[in-house]
Amino acid sequence: MKKKPKLRFGLPKGSLQEATIEKMAKAGFNIQVSSRSYIPYVDDEELEIRLIRAQEISRYVEHGYLDCGITGHDWIQENDSKVHQVSEFQFSKVTRQPARWVLAVPEDSKVKSVKDLKGKRIATEVVNLTKKYLRKHGVKAEVEFSWGSTEFKAHELVDAIVELTETGSSLRANKLRIVDTLLSSTPRLIANHTSWKDKWKRRKIETLSLLLKGALEAEAKVGLKMNIAEKNVAKLLQSLPALRNPTVSNLSQKGWVAVETIIDEHIVREIIPQLKAAGAEGIIEYPLNKVVY
Amino acid sequence: MKKKPKLRFGLPKGSLQEATIEKMAKAGFNIQVSSRSYIPYVDDEELEIRLIRAQEISRYVEHGYLDCGITGHDWIQENDSKVHQVSEFQFSKVTRQPARWVLAVPEDSKVKSVKDLKGKRIATEVVNLTKKYLRKHGVKAEVEFSWGSTEFKAHELVDAIVELTETGSSLRANKLRIVDTLLSSTPRLIANHTSWKDKWKRRKIETLSLLLKGALEAEAKVGLKMNIAEKNVAKLLQSLPALRNPTVSNLSQKGWVAVETIIDEHIVREIIPQLKAAGAEGIIEYPLNKVVY
Amino acid sequence: MKKKPKLRFGLPKGSLQEATIEKMAKAGFNIQVSSRSYIPYVDDEELEIRLIRAQEISRYVEHGYLDCGITGHDWIQENDSKVHQVSEFQFSKVTRQPARWVLAVPEDSKVKSVKDLKGKRIATEVVNLTKKYLRKHGVKAEVEFSWGSTEFKAHELVDAIVELTETGSSLRANKLRIVDTLLSSTPRLIANHTSWKDKWKRRKIETLSLLLKGALEAEAKVGLKMNIAEKNVAKLLQSLPALRNPTVSNLSQKGWVAVETIIDEHIVREIIPQLKAAGAEGIIEYPLNKVVY
Amino acid sequence: MKKKPKLRFGLPKGSLQEATIEKMAKAGFNIQVSSRSYIPYVDDEELEIRLIRAQEISRYVEHGYLDCGITGHDWIQENDSKVHQVSEFQFSKVTRQPARWVLAVPEDSKVKSVKDLKGKRIATEVVNLTKKYLRKHGVKAEVEFSWGSTEFKAHELVDAIVELTETGSSLRANKLRIVDTLLSSTPRLIANHTSWKDKWKRRKIETLSLLLKGALEAEAKVGLKMNIAEKNVAKLLQSLPALRNPTVSNLSQKGWVAVETIIDEHIVREIIPQLKAAGAEGIIEYPLNKVVY
Amino acid sequence: MKKKPKLRFGLPKGSLQEATIEKMAKAGFNIQVSSRSYIPYVDDEELEIRLIRAQEISRYVEHGYLDCGITGHDWIQENDSKVHQVSEFQFSKVTRQPARWVLAVPEDSKVKSVKDLKGKRIATEVVNLTKKYLRKHGVKAEVEFSWGSTEFKAHELVDAIVELTETGSSLRANKLRIVDTLLSSTPRLIANHTSWKDKWKRRKIETLSLLLKGALEAEAKVGLKMNIAEKNVAKLLQSLPALRNPTVSNLSQKGWVAVETIIDEHIVREIIPQLKAAGAEGIIEYPLNKVVY
Amino acid sequence: MKKKPKLRFGLPKGSLQEATIEKMAKAGFNIQVSSRSYIPYVDDEELEIRLIRAQEISRYVEHGYLDCGITGHDWIQENDSKVHQVSEFQFSKVTRQPARWVLAVPEDSKVKSVKDLKGKRIATEVVNLTKKYLRKHGVKAEVEFSWGSTEFKAHELVDAIVELTETGSSLRANKLRIVDTLLSSTPRLIANHTSWKDKWKRRKIETLSLLLKGALEAEAKVGLKMNIAEKNVAKLLQSLPALRNPTVSNLSQKGWVAVETIIDEHIVREIIPQLKAAGAEGIIEYPLNKVVY
Repeated sequence: MKKKPKLRFGLPKGSLQEATIEKMAKAGFNIQVSSRSYIPYVDDEELEIRLIRAQEISRYVEHGYLDCGITGHDWIQENDSKVHQVSEFQFSKVTRQPARWVLAVPEDSKVKSVKDLKGKRIATEVVNLTKKYLRKHGVKAEVEFSWGSTEFKAHELVDAIVELTETGSSLRANKLRIVDTLLSSTPRLIANHTSWKDKWKRRKIETLSLLLKGALEAEAKVGLKMNIAEKNVAKLLQSLPALRNPTVSNLSQKGWVAVETIIDEHIVREIIPQLKAAGAEGIIEYPLNKVVY
Repeated sequence: MKKKPKLRFGLPKGSLQEATIEKMAKAGFNIQVSSRSYIPYVDDEELEIRLIRAQEISRYVEHGYLDCGITGHDWIQENDSKVHQVSEFQFSKVTRQPARWVLAVPEDSKVKSVKDLKGKRIATEVVNLTKKYLRKHGVKAEVEFSWGSTEFKAHELVDAIVELTETGSSLRANKLRIVDTLLSSTPRLIANHTSWKDKWKRRKIETLSLLLKGALEAEAKVGLKMNIAEKNVAKLLQSLPALRNPTVSNLSQKGWVAVETIIDEHIVREIIPQLKAAGAEGIIEYPLNKVVY
Repeated sequence: MKKKPKLRFGLPKGSLQEATIEKMAKAGFNIQVSSRSYIPYVDDEELEIRLIRAQEISRYVEHGYLDCGITGHDWIQENDSKVHQVSEFQFSKVTRQPARWVLAVPEDSKVKSVKDLKGKRIATEVVNLTKKYLRKHGVKAEVEFSWGSTEFKAHELVDAIVELTETGSSLRANKLRIVDTLLSSTPRLIANHTSWKDKWKRRKIETLSLLLKGALEAEAKVGLKMNIAEKNVAKLLQSLPALRNPTVSNLSQKGWVAVETIIDEHIVREIIPQLKAAGAEGIIEYPLNKVVY
Repeated sequence: MKKKPKLRFGLPKGSLQEATIEKMAKAGFNIQVSSRSYIPYVDDEELEIRLIRAQEISRYVEHGYLDCGITGHDWIQENDSKVHQVSEFQFSKVTRQPARWVLAVPEDSKVKSVKDLKGKRIATEVVNLTKKYLRKHGVKAEVEFSWGSTEFKAHELVDAIVELTETGSSLRANKLRIVDTLLSSTPRLIANHTSWKDKWKRRKIETLSLLLKGALEAEAKVGLKMNIAEKNVAKLLQSLPALRNPTVSNLSQKGWVAVETIIDEHIVREIIPQLKAAGAEGIIEYPLNKVVY
Repeated sequence: MKKKPKLRFGLPKGSLQEATIEKMAKAGFNIQVSSRSYIPYVDDEELEIRLIRAQEISRYVEHGYLDCGITGHDWIQENDSKVHQVSEFQFSKVTRQPARWVLAVPEDSKVKSVKDLKGKRIATEVVNLTKKYLRKHGVKAEVEFSWGSTEFKAHELVDAIVELTETGSSLRANKLRIVDTLLSSTPRLIANHTSWKDKWKRRKIETLSLLLKGALEAEAKVGLKMNIAEKNVAKLLQSLPALRNPTVSNLSQKGWVAVETIIDEHIVREIIPQLKAAGAEGIIEYPLNKVVY
Repeated sequence: MKKKPKLRFGLPKGSLQEATIEKMAKAGFNIQVSSRSYIPYVDDEELEIRLIRAQEISRYVEHGYLDCGITGHDWIQENDSKVHQVSEFQFSKVTRQPARWVLAVPEDSKVKSVKDLKGKRIATEVVNLTKKYLRKHGVKAEVEFSWGSTEFKAHELVDAIVELTETGSSLRANKLRIVDTLLSSTPRLIANHTSWKDKWKRRKIETLSLLLKGALEAEAKVGLKMNIAEKNVAKLLQSLPALRNPTVSNLSQKGWVAVETIIDEHIVREIIPQLKAAGAEGIIEYPLNKVVY
C-alpha cells in the first residue's frame, strides 16, 4: 500500500506561536500543541506541523527539512535563504504598518545619518542585514550580535542599535531616536524549491496560501449591511467609493434595498457617519472568518 | 505649517482597562498599551489617549486637562464635576442591570432603614454621595473613607457600609443585607464644556460617541436569520413583535422568503422555540460588531 | 403568592468549567462565578446553577438533587446512573472525534489483546467500566483506582492502564500503545426521571437542550456567502452537495445571484478552491452563534 | 561487575511535593524535578526517587514496587496496607497539631452524634475509614466517594461529610460543625516488609529516617544562646526547666558564662521575658538545619 | 467559667501582608491566612489577628476596635490618631533608610522650593500631611487626593506630587526631582490608650513588642565567629570597635580563643578583610532569628 | 570637589539573575531591581551594577565598559575575551558538578565519536567553541547557530548538537546520547585588564571576590556542633578526618567538651551515623552565611 504524501510545514515558535495557531484555525486547520510532545497535532492527515523559531525557519526550508513555512521577510534576508516565496501576508492589525528594522541612537547622540557611524559599534540581532546596509553606504563600523535588551545598550554599551519596531513607542520611551530604516518586513509563506516543483505539494501549498490569505484578509475586514431607499443607492455608491462591489438585494418592502459589502475595518469609523448622512438605516457591522476574492 | 488638532481622551485605568480597550477596538480604534510608556498608542492621529483611574477622570475633564473621557455616573456625582454629558452606555452584559451603590448591614443588624443610622459609623469609598444621602434623609452619622475590603468591615469595624454591587451575590455571600439603594450608575461619555463648544472637537467627540454606542449596542444584540414560507410571514411578524423591522428578501425558491433582523441577544432564548413553532427553518444567529440605527 | 418554579441544573466544575460557561453564554444564559459564593449567578430566574465535578453529576441527577445536568457518557456509565438522557452533544472541535477510554500498555509490552491481561494489574480512574470490560471478555485481573498521572504508572507500577484520550498523542509521547477501546464518550444532557415527568420542568429542559444544541452546532459550522452568475448556479450546486439547502437571493445586478449556506467549518478548506473554480466570486465566511434547523 | 544496590523511595506528589523536597534537602538529599522527565534526579547514587500521590504510596510499598516511602497515617489506614512503619514525623509547624479527619455537618443540622447518621448519606475521600467508623458505632449509612469540594456538599448534596482539617477554620468559614474525630494523622516513613529484612536496605532506610527526623526536628526547634553571670546560672536553670541540658561554656570575662541550648521554637516567645528577668544578656536565637539527640 | 482574655491585634493587609506575617513567625507567632475566612488563624489563644489596610489601622486602634496594631508613622500622622506608641521598628533591610514622603516635580519644573507652589495643584495620597506642610510654610495651594499612579500625574495633570520613596530610583526613572522631604516614616507598634492601661493587655503588648523587636533586629544582624591567637585578641578588639561585647571562649588548643559577636550585617563586608589582616582564621557568619539585648 | 570612584560591575541578567542577586545579598550587597529603571539600586556607593546577558558580559568587560563581572567560563571562551580572571566559584549546589557543554546525538545514531561527524550538520549556541573543537580533532562539519530548543533539533533538523547539561537527565528524557564533553564551565569573576591595574579598583574587586567566595562557600557548608566525653574526642577526630580543625571548647560539666566544625553539607548525611556511633550527643547542624578561611 502506498503511503499518503505529507507536507511538512514550519510555523514560528515562541511569541508568535499562539497567534499563528489561531490564524491557522481561522484558515481551517486546527492545531493542538501538547506539553508532552514536541510534534503538534493537526486535523489534516496531509500535513505535518513543526514549531521552529522564526529566525531559523527559512534555513530549514532551504535545506529541505521543511517543505514550506511561515516566517518574516527580515529573517529570510538575514539568513540569505534561497527559497520560493509563495505569498505575503497582511500588516499588523493594530497599526496597519509592517514591522521595521531601524537604526536608532540616543536622542542626544551626534549621529544624524548612517555616515556618522564610521568607526562606531552597533548592536543588533540582525548582524548580516546591518553589515549589508553599512556596506551599501560605504561605512566601516563594528557590528556585534545582541542577545537581547538591545534598547538599553544604545545608551551605554554601544553607539547605535538596529532594532525592530512597529509604532516606535518603545524606542521613544527609551529616549532613542530613529536615524534610518533598514528593512520593512511582513510575514511570508515560503517553500523549498524542490517541494514547489512537486505537483501534489505545490497544490497543497497553494491551498494553504489561499486559505491563510483568506483568513488574514478577514481579520482586517468586516461585513457592512444597511437598508436604504432605492432612489438613494446610486448617490450612496457614487459618493462612497469604499463600498466597491456591493451586493444590492431587493427587500420585500417596495422601494427599499439592502446593501451589503465587505470593507476595511479601519475605515468603518469614517464611513458610518457618512452612511447615516446619505440616508442609510439599520447599519450593522459583522465579523468575518475568511474573505476570498 | 499648522499643527493638526488633537482630542485628549481619558479611559479608565485598572480593572476596567482591558474591557474598555476591547470596546474601543470594536468601535474601530486600536489601542496598544506599552509597559514601558504610560501613553498608549492609538491608530488615529487625531486622538491622544490617557489611562486614568475611573474615580479621577471627571475631575480632569472638568479641569480641561482631558477634552473628554469615559467614566461612571457614580464618580461624576461623587466628585460633583461640572462636565457635559455626551452619552450613556449600556448596562452590564451579564446581568443587564446597572451597577448600584447600596447601603448594607449585617443580616442580623437592627438597622432596617436609613433612619436607624443616627449616630452610627458608615464606611464607604463614596464619602460625598453617602453624606448627601444622609443629609437628604435628615440623618446624622459618621462617614469614613474605606480603602478597601469594605464588605468585611460591616461585621466588626462599622455599623453599615455603602458599597457597589451588581447582582448582590457578593453581599449575600458575606451575610450582608441591602437596606437601600443610593445611586444606580452606568458608564458615560463626558466632555469638558469648553471642548464641547469647539466645532472640530465636538464633531470628533460625537463620532466617538456614535461608534462606541454602535459597538456597545452590538454586544447585547445579535443577527437572526431564517427561512419561512411566504404565507406564514405575516403571522410570524404579528405574533413576534420582537422581530421589528425585519429585512424580508425573496429567495429563488418560489414561495419562500428569508427573514433577517437584529434583536436583543437575551430574548433569543425565548424566541427560538416560538419561531420553530411558527414554521421558521434554518434559523441562524450570528454575532455583530456594530449596530447603528 | 405562589413561588416561581426553578430548575436545578448541574454543570461540570474544574477543567471543563470555563468552556461550559462559555457555551451556556452562547446558548443565551449568562453565568457569573463568584470566588466568594459557591452558587453562581445566572441571568434566568427560572434556573439554579450548581457546579459539580463531572464524575459526580449523574449521581446527583439520579438522586434528584439536580433536575438535570451536563456530563459525559463515560461517567454516567461508570456510576451506572438511572437517568433520562435528553440529548447528546457534538464532538471536540479540534479533532472532531469523541473522547475514548482506551486500554494502553508500554510499547514493548507483550500484551497484545485484553486476553493477555489475565492475572495482571490495571490502574484507571474508571474502575467499574474496566471491571465490566474484563468480565465481558472473561478475563480475571486486578483493577485499582488511580488518583492521577495514570500514564506514568503503565511503565513501572502496573501492567496496563485504562485512560482517556482524544488524539492519542499524549499516549504516544509516553511510549504507550493502545490495545483496545472500551468506550467512546460524548457530553450528554441528562435529567432526573421525576423532573422529566414534570410538565414545566420538561419544557424548560427541552428549551435548554434546543439552545445548547444550537450553540454547539454553531461552533462547528460557519456561514458561507458568495456571488455567482445565475447560469452557473445549477452546476455549482450539483457538483458541491455540501452546499445543501442554500439560500439563493437575487442581486440587483442582472444575471447574478448571491448564494448563502451554512456548512461544516472543517470542509471549508476543501470547498473554497472548488468554489473559485466553479466561478464563485467574493466568497466570505462568517462565524455563527447558533444554528437551529 | 556487580551492580550497585539501590533503594526505591516514594515521595508524595502534588500539594506536598515542594515541601517534601525541601525537607529532603534539609536532610541532605538534593532532588531536582525535571518537567521533561518523570524520574527526579537525586544526588545519591544509592537512591531512586519516585513521586507518587500520597493516597497511593502505601499501596506500592506494600506491593514491593517501592522499598519505602513517606505518606500519611490516614492513607495507610484507608488502604489497609501491610507495611513496616519505620518512623513518625512531626506535626505541622504552624499549628503543632496533627491533621484530623472529622465528621462534620451544617451548623444547624440535627445530627449531634454519629448515632444520628442512621440512614443518611455521607461524602468523603476516605470511604473505607468512614465505613469502618460507622461499623464500629453500629450505624448503617450510605458512604459515597467525593471527588472534591467536599465542604460544599454538606449543605446540599449529602447529610454529612468526613473531611480533613487542621485548625478547623475552613470548616467554620463554611458554616460546618465538627461532630466527631475519626482519625488523627501524621506523616510516616514506611517500608516494604521484604525490603526491611534486607540488611543493606534496612541500614539505608534507617539512615534516611535518622536524617529526616533530624531535619524535621530542627524545623520546630531553635538554638538559644545568652550570657549570664555565673552566680545566676543555677537559679536560671532551676526556674526554667525548658533549658534542659544546656551547654555552659566559660567566657574570658571572669564570672560570666555563655549558656546555649536547643529548645522548641514555640516556647521561645514565653521564655525570653523570663530569661531577661533572670539576668540573661545578649540573648540570641538562631535557626537549625538538623537536631540529632 | 471565666472567658480567657484576648488581645485584638491589627496587621497591615496587602503589599506588606506577607512580609509582616513572616516577621510575626520569626517573633514566634505563626499566622495562617485562609482564602475562605477573613479572620486568620494564629497559634496563640490569647491573640486575635485582623488584617486591615495600613492606612486605616491607627483609626481602628484609636476607636478601640483593635487593642493594638502595626502601621507606619505616616498614616498615624495622616489620620491624626490619638494612640499610644509602644515601639518603633527598624528601617528597610535593603536601603537601611526610612521611607520618606517627598515633594517632587518634573526635572525641568520651575518649582525650586515649597514657596513656588503658591496657587498650584498637588496630587497625593496623604492629603492631610500635605495640607499641614503647606500651612506650616504659609503656602496656599490646591491639594487633591490621588487614587494611584501619582508619579505619572506630575508631568501632565498637576504641578507637583507628594509621594513615598525609599531610594528615589522610581522618581528618577520618571524624570522627577525631589524638592523637599515632608516626613520620614518607620513602622510602629501602637496601642489603644484604654487597652494600654489594662494590666494584662499591656503585658501582652509589651511581650509582642519585645519579640518583634528581637526578630526585626535579627534581620539586620548576623553572628560572626572566628578563631584567633590569644595574644592578638586585644589588638583585634581595639582596632575593631564594631566587635563590641564579644564572647571570647577558650579553645582546647593552647593559646587560641574563639571570638564570637553579633554585628550589623551591612558592616560585615568591610570588617572581614580587616579581621583577616588582624590574624583571624576560620571566620564564619551565621544567620539569626532573634536578638534581644 | 573630587568625585568618588566607582566600580562598574556586570551581573548576569535573565535566568541566573535572581540567584545572583541573592548571592550578592549573602555577600553583603543588597541589590534592588526596579521595573521602571534598568539600573538596579545597590546599597554601596562605590558600586554601579549593570544587568547584562551572561553571553555578553565578558565582551563588555574586555571593552572596558564594565570594570568587572560574573559570567561562565564557557562564554569567556566562546567570546575569546581577553580579561583577567579573578576567581572561580563553586559548582552547583544540587549536583556538585560543573555545567558541561556536550556533544549529543540521538540514542540510535551511528555517530560514536567526534570523527563520525565529518560532513554532518551540528546545531549549538556556542558556535565558536564547537568549531574550535572540530578543528582540534581535524573534523570538517557544518556548525549552525541555534536560537533555542536545541535538543529537539537533534532528532530531525541536524545530525548532532552541542548543548549544556548538568545531570544529563534532560538529554536522556529526549532520547539523546552524550558522545563527548567539550568544556566544563564554572562561574568566574573577571576583570578588565586596565581596571585590574588601578589600585583602588583592584582592592574593591578583591574584596568583592573574598565576600562572594565566602558566601558561595557557605552555601555548600554547614556548621556542626556536638557534645562528647573528653576521653572520646581523640578517637572521634582520628576516625573522622572530615572534622578538620574543629573548635573544641570546655563545658562546665566536667569531662565533657563541645566540638564544633564547619563541613561540607553533602557529607553530613554520611557522618552523622558515625558521630552517634563514636559517642557524640546533641548533634546540631546550623546554616552559614559566609565562610572565610
